[in-house]
Amino acid sequence: MTDSTATNSPDPTPAPARSGRSGGGRSARQAKRSAAAVVAPYLTRTLPPVEVLDEAGLAQIEENAETILSEIGIAFQEFPEALELWRQAGAQVEGELVKFPRGLCRQIVQQNAPASFIQEARNPARNVKIGGNATVFAPNYGSPFVTDLDRGRRYATIADFQDAVKLIYSIPHLHHSGGTVCEPTDVPVNKRHLDMVYSHLKYSDKPLMGSVTAAERAADSVELCQIAFGGDLGDRTVLTSLINASSPLRWDATMLGAATVYAKANQATVISPFILAGAMSPVTVAGMAAQALAEALSGMAYCQLVRPGAPVIFGTFASSMSMATGAPTFGTPEAGLAIFVMAALARRVGVPFRSGGQFTASKHPDAQAAYESAHTLLPTVQAGVNFVLHAAGWLEGGLALSFEKLIMDGDQLGAMTVYGKGVDMTENGQAMSAFRSNEHGQHFLGNEHTLGNFETAFWRSELSDNNSFEQWSDEGAQTHDQRANERWKQMLSDYAAPELDDAIDAQMLAFIEKRKSEMRDEIG
Amino acid sequence: MTDSTATNSPDPTPAPARSGRSGGGRSARQAKRSAAAVVAPYLTRTLPPVEVLDEAGLAQIEENAETILSEIGIAFQEFPEALELWRQAGAQVEGELVKFPRGLCRQIVQQNAPASFIQEARNPARNVKIGGNATVFAPNYGSPFVTDLDRGRRYATIADFQDAVKLIYSIPHLHHSGGTVCEPTDVPVNKRHLDMVYSHLKYSDKPLMGSVTAAERAADSVELCQIAFGGDLGDRTVLTSLINASSPLRWDATMLGAATVYAKANQATVISPFILAGAMSPVTVAGMAAQALAEALSGMAYCQLVRPGAPVIFGTFASSMSMATGAPTFGTPEAGLAIFVMAALARRVGVPFRSGGQFTASKHPDAQAAYESAHTLLPTVQAGVNFVLHAAGWLEGGLALSFEKLIMDGDQLGAMTVYGKGVDMTENGQAMSAFRSNEHGQHFLGNEHTLGNFETAFWRSELSDNNSFEQWSDEGAQTHDQRANERWKQMLSDYAAPELDDAIDAQMLAFIEKRKSEMRDEIG
Repeated sequence: MTDSTATNSPDPTPAPARSGRSGGGRSARQAKRSAAAVVAPYLTRTLPPVEVLDEAGLAQIEENAETILSEIGIAFQEFPEALELWRQAGAQVEGELVKFPRGLCRQIVQQNAPASFIQEARNPARNVKIGGNATVFAPNYGSPFVTDLDRGRRYATIADFQDAVKLIYSIPHLHHSGGTVCEPTDVPVNKRHLDMVYSHLKYSDKPLMGSVTAAERAADSVELCQIAFGGDLGDRTVLTSLINASSPLRWDATMLGAATVYAKANQATVISPFILAGAMSPVTVAGMAAQALAEALSGMAYCQLVRPGAPVIFGTFASSMSMATGAPTFGTPEAGLAIFVMAALARRVGVPFRSGGQFTASKHPDAQAAYESAHTLLPTVQAGVNFVLHAAGWLEGGLALSFEKLIMDGDQLGAMTVYGKGVDMTENGQAMSAFRSNEHGQHFLGNEHTLGNFETAFWRSELSDNNSFEQWSDEGAQTHDQRANERWKQMLSDYAAPELDDAIDAQMLAFIEKRKSEMRDEIG
Repeated sequence: MTDSTATNSPDPTPAPARSGRSGGGRSARQAKRSAAAVVAPYLTRTLPPVEVLDEAGLAQIEENAETILSEIGIAFQEFPEALELWRQAGAQVEGELVKFPRGLCRQIVQQNAPASFIQEARNPARNVKIGGNATVFAPNYGSPFVTDLDRGRRYATIADFQDAVKLIYSIPHLHHSGGTVCEPTDVPVNKRHLDMVYSHLKYSDKPLMGSVTAAERAADSVELCQIAFGGDLGDRTVLTSLINASSPLRWDATMLGAATVYAKANQATVISPFILAGAMSPVTVAGMAAQALAEALSGMAYCQLVRPGAPVIFGTFASSMSMATGAPTFGTPEAGLAIFVMAALARRVGVPFRSGGQFTASKHPDAQAAYESAHTLLPTVQAGVNFVLHAAGWLEGGLALSFEKLIMDGDQLGAMTVYGKGVDMTENGQAMSAFRSNEHGQHFLGNEHTLGNFETAFWRSELSDNNSFEQWSDEGAQTHDQRANERWKQMLSDYAAPELDDAIDAQMLAFIEKRKSEMRDEIG
């Protein structure tokens, strides 16, 4: 398999890198690479975060979270190491249930966890800041299926996974390569993490996420990164990985195991309550928020007990459900409000915050998908979310990664970059010179101020069609999803991999081969 | 033509009402009418407006607007009556150009224009408050074309117009019937206003807009309303009509003529700068805002000179353009930011504000249309816009009214109602009883708090599909626009007209016949 491997090759395992590559030589490849040039490694917001609750409301939710932590408690299941750490920290441990003196979790987090941190990428130009006024967009995560207009919906393979990583690499406003962008179901469940982490490191140089499905898989992820990043990581943070709560009010051994490995290695974790309100929490935003705050505080505090100062992100995945059918619903106003509330609560803790994305329950990249995605994305940016998983590609309640939606959503992310900057109030922004120099009543197209700001005046979608009906019809009357379909195929065909030292590549592959040989295949 | 007239009947003129109607009798009709029951006559926001500029930024834009008003001036073209009023008010009149002492326009508006007002509907339960914390959604306006998935894009007729009015009547979250929801191009241009105003009054009992294409057509609109509302209107406001500036910095005689008629009759006008930034204004948000503020202040102040206290709405239509092709673009971040800035400026003047909607440049009700619409609608509600024209149905940069998009957008408006309410911090909202009564780690589906809030817990789209992929496939794998297509045809088939006194109907028709007989047909 070479850099310019064909779309969705049936070969499920990464082949060794070839030292002599075909196709146009070094300069041609470098020219291609400029297509994946770093626009900006992350979005920097100057617009202040939007608040939907006042001080009293936020303080009340914090009070309620402390009541949950102290009176109802959080279960740390089948993980004695955590219970022992909590006992030492002064919590009350009843079987697997931990009850925390009021304020304990918050204090542990505030005294130890960094307010922001840098996650390093293989390409330093793509290092991301996580926290503060930075917003990092990461792709879809966790879908067993992939779908596209040509081939329809199907179980994802490692070839789909690699195609997705290549597309994510090629979309300028996806700052992060993500993790399980889809599940490579053709690789045994106990070995696929190796192929996934390798694929991110091989086909992209953006920052990535590690495996969380078992402690030893987390350890493998760290080890692969040590090879890729040139040896001992020291205190460098090169992985951000997703630790989901078993909401309500529980952490399970799998997630605790992975979190422990990452915290010990100073790698970042997203400590994420995972809530469909009505099922995993009460139905109201304020009730859900108190629970999510309690869960996140307990998980982040645990990481600090493992290693004080380990980077953690306060995560929240919260959506609503159809109370008629139990089906999850997305892009709803309740979910939008929850993003604002949780972001404010995270700011008050003083740690980076993860939420939002571009969610939808639609089965097709159609208008439903877009309405619901936009109604999630704009609150995400307005609320000042720092790490946005699922920022592109999510379809069908997360069950499927859509190649078309990956492109469509990726395009929308560009608009958010402008949005986050707010209104330019410089002298040029005020544009009084334009009024003074324009003849009364005349248009501004030829005005010096207009010409001077021509290039950067407005965000321009790379995918939307703004032409006349006649021109659009003449060009085939394509809908947005059809344009996206053409685009991702073109992007895959244009893809050129980032530089990767052949020795490092060989070392990673040797490690993967060794690890795979040590395990029997497990079927998921 | 009866209440249950077939879709898109070719008969372009409204026929007299029949006293004996067929089809199920009075009770069946009343049962049908309940389908168009008043959910809420308008949206009431409790969420505070989102601000994107601080005090200093807003004050700077106000300062710049005063500079424009005093040094550059606004043209009042071919309308000596306005120039005379400005002379008397202390402005400096140079030909048709009026220059205003700093603060004059603002002072006139603030001393005279109401901060909010009630626009009465034929059905008092549908009276709308315009201003303050109220948001009124009105439909698409001004499109020469209509389009639907069955018949494609075509010039609109009066039959299309009437179908649109019936659909708007049937969509609960459209609070207003609008005005020129599409242009009935099969009726002579000098007569179509009569058929349009009549159609709103006949096929709906929601509030409406009057004609603005000539002073005498505005007068006809008022006269038809006098009949429909049972005689002399006194000080009642029953029309809100759209007065567009000829931006930059001009008012033309047509618009001034209509505005004068309405102001004298105490009818409301939306005083709207109409700006595609780059052409009708400088390219920057702050530059556009200063110009729009200057234009709106001058137009609103003029109405106050005509009749102190005449209700006016500070309007802004502002979008961006492709600097490559000159094509208007919609749903862009710049346009979103402009809505927030202009809403804040209007609040500081102290008058109701019109902007936003659900805009798109797409030619099909696809994902592009939905992304762009959502990225306009959410800022519209967050900014606290009071009167939202184009809230549903807009396609193709406003050139076409899409029946499918009317339904799709109308569905989204329901979500905004929930959004505007913000977070419930009552005891029930905090839901602590749910945590206290739930067994640890168990889901909340059977919890008493969940059951008690079951019905109203979450906004539920009436159009989106949240079912499984399998169920969706089994049901025909319809996309959002296809579902909307089925829906509008069903709604037209279910439509039953609101009550209208036969004598009033006959009197309106007699007036229309008389007015039409006084004019030769003019072709637009």
